[in-house]
Amino acid sequence: MAADQRPIGVFDSGVGGLTVLRTLIDRFPHENFIYLGDTARLPYGNKSPETIHRYSLQNIDLLAKRGVKAVVIACNSASSSLSEHEINGLPIYNTIGPGAEAAVDAHEGRRIGLIGTRATVESRAYEKEIHRLDPEAQVFAQACPLLVPLAEEGWDADPVTNLIVYRYLQKIMHNQIGVLILGCTHYPLLAGSITRVTGAAVTLIDSGEAIAMKMKSDLAAGRWVAADSSSEGDFHLLVTDLTGPFREIARKILGPIAAEPELVDL
Amino acid sequence: MAADQRPIGVFDSGVGGLTVLRTLIDRFPHENFIYLGDTARLPYGNKSPETIHRYSLQNIDLLAKRGVKAVVIACNSASSSLSEHEINGLPIYNTIGPGAEAAVDAHEGRRIGLIGTRATVESRAYEKEIHRLDPEAQVFAQACPLLVPLAEEGWDADPVTNLIVYRYLQKIMHNQIGVLILGCTHYPLLAGSITRVTGAAVTLIDSGEAIAMKMKSDLAAGRWVAADSSSEGDFHLLVTDLTGPFREIARKILGPIAAEPELVDL
Repeated sequence: MAADQRPIGVFDSGVGGLTVLRTLIDRFPHENFIYLGDTARLPYGNKSPETIHRYSLQNIDLLAKRGVKAVVIACNSASSSLSEHEINGLPIYNTIGPGAEAAVDAHEGRRIGLIGTRATVESRAYEKEIHRLDPEAQVFAQACPLLVPLAEEGWDADPVTNLIVYRYLQKIMHNQIGVLILGCTHYPLLAGSITRVTGAAVTLIDSGEAIAMKMKSDLAAGRWVAADSSSEGDFHLLVTDLTGPFREIARKILGPIAAEPELVDL
Repeated sequence: MAADQRPIGVFDSGVGGLTVLRTLIDRFPHENFIYLGDTARLPYGNKSPETIHRYSLQNIDLLAKRGVKAVVIACNSASSSLSEHEINGLPIYNTIGPGAEAAVDAHEGRRIGLIGTRATVESRAYEKEIHRLDPEAQVFAQACPLLVPLAEEGWDADPVTNLIVYRYLQKIMHNQIGVLILGCTHYPLLAGSITRVTGAAVTLIDSGEAIAMKMKSDLAAGRWVAADSSSEGDFHLLVTDLTGPFREIARKILGPIAAEPELVDL
């Protein structure tokens, strides 16, 4: 089959999804990516399902107009509000299915912890998907509204962050979970503090790795076609608002960035 | 002069401005208020001046269409991005002028501390206004991105919040400030933690009180006309997104609320 050089679209409300982009670049080094951060309206995690759904469709529409071959929703709040697996013929990857699958495969004793934004936890999207895969699994969920701003402050493995993570996780740790879903793409930025509280015995599920695994098996099954393996992939950043912190965190996650993010209107 | 029964418009990105509304209701018990929380796009404090300015003009426009007689910008980030004192004949009150005036009047030794969002601190709007009033005053400013989510979690006078406030304030406290501007309308919700760190010797400047004082003197000067003093005032809440936390915090600040907030589109 001929190679497909069209880019893969990835979006998030802001910088969190860059952790997913980073993983996808590592796993698919020949692919081109377009990343959209809806920074003018971030964050999504404290908004209603209706509003998040509307914003997500606008983001997908913008990426479709840029000629992408697939869309990755690198935001758990957006994934929770959108169950479509295909929109206008475009494969849509969200975090929920792959994350739930990885958790069910990984966990021991069927006790799964979930942390995320208020929107993600209240949607119960992970619970539904996990129970579809394993009706006997138990899910212990906790909304952690302070973790996104802590990640954006860059306070990982900081005593204050350790304390706050401990407070949020205390209750679900008492339920002797074997696996913890990081149900927000910002949370890998706080892995230091989180593992300090959970200890090494709890497996952490990261949205980026889970999506990459799902995309690999879909690639083998022919759901999408890879770029030419002799070419080197590239990425391009779009934002709806240009701020200093976005640039800073993007550099931290992606390394030196050749071009300024492009400002787009939504 | 005949009484003017038209409401006073108040807006903020979300719940923070409710602390200003609360003070205005107490100081002007005969006035009617319309409050707009732009909850679909909150917060403003981490967005660019251009985006905040655009959102603010849309909010003022919506309130003008509802027939208000004046607009209070109950958000420091929005106030920092908008210097107009009148728009289409409507008096506009922002937090900067009144806050700077109260700080210059109150402080001893001309050493003024300022805490706020990134947008407010980076705009240097308070510094400019303070130096216009007193060229010799020194201003020590600190952006505190975590305080808004802590206020929304309701963690006032909590050990974690005390620690974070201490870390943010440490540097400006070393400059022996005599007054501290709470340059974000969420911060009065954390007054317990803040006074624990500053001690009683530092005077706190609250946007609500500062604006109420300015509006009182403008009322006397005829810039606006009061409602009939035999009538009891009322308030009406508008939001661009309807979420549980908004209702919760609104009840906490305003007491029992008769009607659900009205959902509007922007």
